[in-house]
Amino acid sequence: MKIVLDMMGSDHGSQATKEGARLFHKRHPEIDLVLVGKKDELSDMDGFEVVEAEDVVEMDMGAIEVLRKKESSLVKAVTYCAKNGCDAVVSAGSTGAFLSASAIVLKKINGILRPALVTNFPNLKTGGQVTILDIGASIRNTPEELCQFALMGTLYAEAVNGCRSPKVRLLSNGVEEGKGSDEGKAAYKLLKEDHLINFQGNVEASKVLTGDSDVVVTSGYDGNVLLKSTEGAAKGMSGLIKKAFMRNIFSKLGYLLSKKGFDGLKKTLDPRSTGGALLCGVRAVAVKAHGNSDGLGFSNAIEVAYRLANKGIVESLEKAMEGK
Amino acid sequence: MKIVLDMMGSDHGSQATKEGARLFHKRHPEIDLVLVGKKDELSDMDGFEVVEAEDVVEMDMGAIEVLRKKESSLVKAVTYCAKNGCDAVVSAGSTGAFLSASAIVLKKINGILRPALVTNFPNLKTGGQVTILDIGASIRNTPEELCQFALMGTLYAEAVNGCRSPKVRLLSNGVEEGKGSDEGKAAYKLLKEDHLINFQGNVEASKVLTGDSDVVVTSGYDGNVLLKSTEGAAKGMSGLIKKAFMRNIFSKLGYLLSKKGFDGLKKTLDPRSTGGALLCGVRAVAVKAHGNSDGLGFSNAIEVAYRLANKGIVESLEKAMEGK
Repeated sequence: MKIVLDMMGSDHGSQATKEGARLFHKRHPEIDLVLVGKKDELSDMDGFEVVEAEDVVEMDMGAIEVLRKKESSLVKAVTYCAKNGCDAVVSAGSTGAFLSASAIVLKKINGILRPALVTNFPNLKTGGQVTILDIGASIRNTPEELCQFALMGTLYAEAVNGCRSPKVRLLSNGVEEGKGSDEGKAAYKLLKEDHLINFQGNVEASKVLTGDSDVVVTSGYDGNVLLKSTEGAAKGMSGLIKKAFMRNIFSKLGYLLSKKGFDGLKKTLDPRSTGGALLCGVRAVAVKAHGNSDGLGFSNAIEVAYRLANKGIVESLEKAMEGK
Repeated sequence: MKIVLDMMGSDHGSQATKEGARLFHKRHPEIDLVLVGKKDELSDMDGFEVVEAEDVVEMDMGAIEVLRKKESSLVKAVTYCAKNGCDAVVSAGSTGAFLSASAIVLKKINGILRPALVTNFPNLKTGGQVTILDIGASIRNTPEELCQFALMGTLYAEAVNGCRSPKVRLLSNGVEEGKGSDEGKAAYKLLKEDHLINFQGNVEASKVLTGDSDVVVTSGYDGNVLLKSTEGAAKGMSGLIKKAFMRNIFSKLGYLLSKKGFDGLKKTLDPRSTGGALLCGVRAVAVKAHGNSDGLGFSNAIEVAYRLANKGIVESLEKAMEGK
């Protein structure tokens, strides 16, 4: 197996991606990593295959600009993956740039209408995972696209979380059929008839992280709102928890006594543990790591890519699409 | 001032609404309350004006069905408010039913395209409030409707939170102009030119509760996702906090030591403190209390209605619309 890494995309520079590559290599020495980036910054990466890329994609570049930047580490990593039939590519660079490059260079799987960004979120009640898509590759999606997302999410939850017959729900503003956006209502009807999907109806945003859904399907814009609201609330509450403990000498002592439990909470909410989001629907495993990934975060993103490639998610999706 | 109360809408029955009415009356004995509901259940409410309503609206009734239920406490309360020119009406009944009845019976203010549901959410960083609208009266809104929401939100933040020149932002999936849904992008352009609004651009969902926005404008469906994701995350985290403290005898002791700080956190997040949501854009103050309001929650909803009526939010909006 060969995984291609864009070494220049992280906000923390190549220090973070290099540490990530080393951490992953320690866990999986049998997997070939291809490091794409500035040679002088990667000169200390003995034993790794390095591909030179002189340029870096800036964060706010448009899609067309990005594709013109053929010498950038991001475009070169994706292109290398496509040309050499590698299994996966991982980047912490600009989401928009990575989406455009992956969709155009790696190409969509036959029959896929639109790729979707997929990620896991922790279920705060069970300690398990909830797979959410699309979280921002699109703005609005058609009912047919939403149905394909349900299939992608099912394959993802099976491959990454080891779910059997994952429970799929549609994000909506009410649980009853007939609630939601026009596209959501039409998707509901299609999903009810789809025997590949264990469709369980609608779910409200308040029950995504504390319910029993394995997969939650939504249009990209709403998925983005869902994800970011949750991040914002979690971050805000973490601040409040800190404040509650810092109140006085007694509460500080209280913190010391309950520290272990709160370390667990922190770990549950740590975005680094998710690693990254998969762009599902293209002909290789394309994983977008968080832009501010540190070494651990980046190594977890490579781990997600590895697991997805190992389980053959691209092949499973291709096969499912052939059967349609 | 006269405030009309639907006494039958709460999930907890008339016990909760009666307690709410009494609590509010203690704080504001000068305000006339009109209690609408089953006479036998309200027989112990001496000193209050009671209007008989034999029927109750069920939670999942359609809009047209609701309006036919003329003898229901919900429709009767709204109708009484309209016919007698009362200042405000409060109900903890079905949101959909209350929206339909209010929009049709109370009627829209001249020039208002669509009423919006408005509520406050706590700013987890500053301890202040963020006004969010629409949180679910609509699904999708036009750019022109979003601009009117910005005006309504401004008046609400001024009246309820005492904000001066509230900072208004549009919910989007990125801060740059050009990010967001089609209607959001068009609304951005209109708001930039609107000199009644202190428009500050886009805000991502992750920064709504921890940023410096006073008002956040969004389409109803996305507002609903934002609100419910936040509620879900807060609830899930509260569960995790409890678990962290219950870990062992030391963490339990830790809880006792830091209890006061966490009581503050609980209070910040208590949905009862918000009281309810205003249906803004109709010719009276129409406040929807939480369905599961207890006495305190219902009294806070009456308090919100009182404050909005006292500040003349309906008149301010009418005046602003005349100037347009």
